[in-house]
Amino acid sequence: MAHIQVTEGIPGIRSLVMFRPESGQYLYELAQVLLRGDSPLSEAERELIAAYVSSRNECMFCMSSHAAAARYLFKDKKHVVDIVLDDYQSAPISNKLKALLTIAGKVQINGKNVLPQDVEEARKHGAGDRDIHDTVLIAATFSMFNRYVDGLASFTPTDPKAYEEMGVRMGENGYVLPTKS
Amino acid sequence: MAHIQVTEGIPGIRSLVMFRPESGQYLYELAQVLLRGDSPLSEAERELIAAYVSSRNECMFCMSSHAAAARYLFKDKKHVVDIVLDDYQSAPISNKLKALLTIAGKVQINGKNVLPQDVEEARKHGAGDRDIHDTVLIAATFSMFNRYVDGLASFTPTDPKAYEEMGVRMGENGYVLPTKS
Repeated sequence: MAHIQVTEGIPGIRSLVMFRPESGQYLYELAQVLLRGDSPLSEAERELIAAYVSSRNECMFCMSSHAAAARYLFKDKKHVVDIVLDDYQSAPISNKLKALLTIAGKVQINGKNVLPQDVEEARKHGAGDRDIHDTVLIAATFSMFNRYVDGLASFTPTDPKAYEEMGVRMGENGYVLPTKS
Repeated sequence: MAHIQVTEGIPGIRSLVMFRPESGQYLYELAQVLLRGDSPLSEAERELIAAYVSSRNECMFCMSSHAAAARYLFKDKKHVVDIVLDDYQSAPISNKLKALLTIAGKVQINGKNVLPQDVEEARKHGAGDRDIHDTVLIAATFSMFNRYVDGLASFTPTDPKAYEEMGVRMGENGYVLPTKS
């Protein structure tokens, strides 16, 4: 049971933004611009960062849904997602993405943990200002979404099929504010 | 020095939203609706929750600026702000606000730390769904802002006068996206 009265059976953040669309609209627009807008990082890479941070915050709903979206977007390389969530250093991804995941993991704990040498390491592998900016803001934003979803104890489906369907929808349509109708 | 190339001398989040206004606009609109929009919590109380969470995340820029905004909005009770930041249980504030600060402090660590009995305690002192929702989302949102500001090592002024002026501006004008001009 959620801590506040939201529509029954609507999972995760969807139930919360339907409760309060006045703030919810900006949460969805932020997710859309960060994860689908212009960026040097691919949509799949950005969903992966979102899933990775959510996994570290143990937010089952955000982790499962964004991992599903990442799997959908990585297409025939979808196995990468589970390897990253298990141990990104051993995953078949670029050194640039590994360095960015290190930064995201530090942001998940506290922004001050990101040191100049972490940024230097990412730059050494080709990351520019926008890669670094987007990584930090995605990690910060999911530190918010995770807390919103779990802090109000919103409904977390347990059926993997539900997340698979969400991943397809998120991959195809992006983030569109749900309406009560 | 910030980790990415932003306009010199512009403090905190302002420099970051000027670097990337496409996401910045939603961050400012979110702050505006959460801290100045319709809510059962006063603007002063909401700024206090923002300052309290930022203090727990040791984000000097957000803590100092939102504490200054709270002092401005609390008017002749502005001493309350520093007592809350030091030890909110001993502050001359309502039991409802104390219970909500307890929830905010738990969200700052991890959303899952908020237990049904924390929500029950807040309800016992008059909190309704919207008080609880807004408290959790403000705490979650500042867990994002704090990480964005510190994760990119944005400029943090040290002069208390700078924050006092910010507090007046934030109290009077709210959150308006800065422009490059």
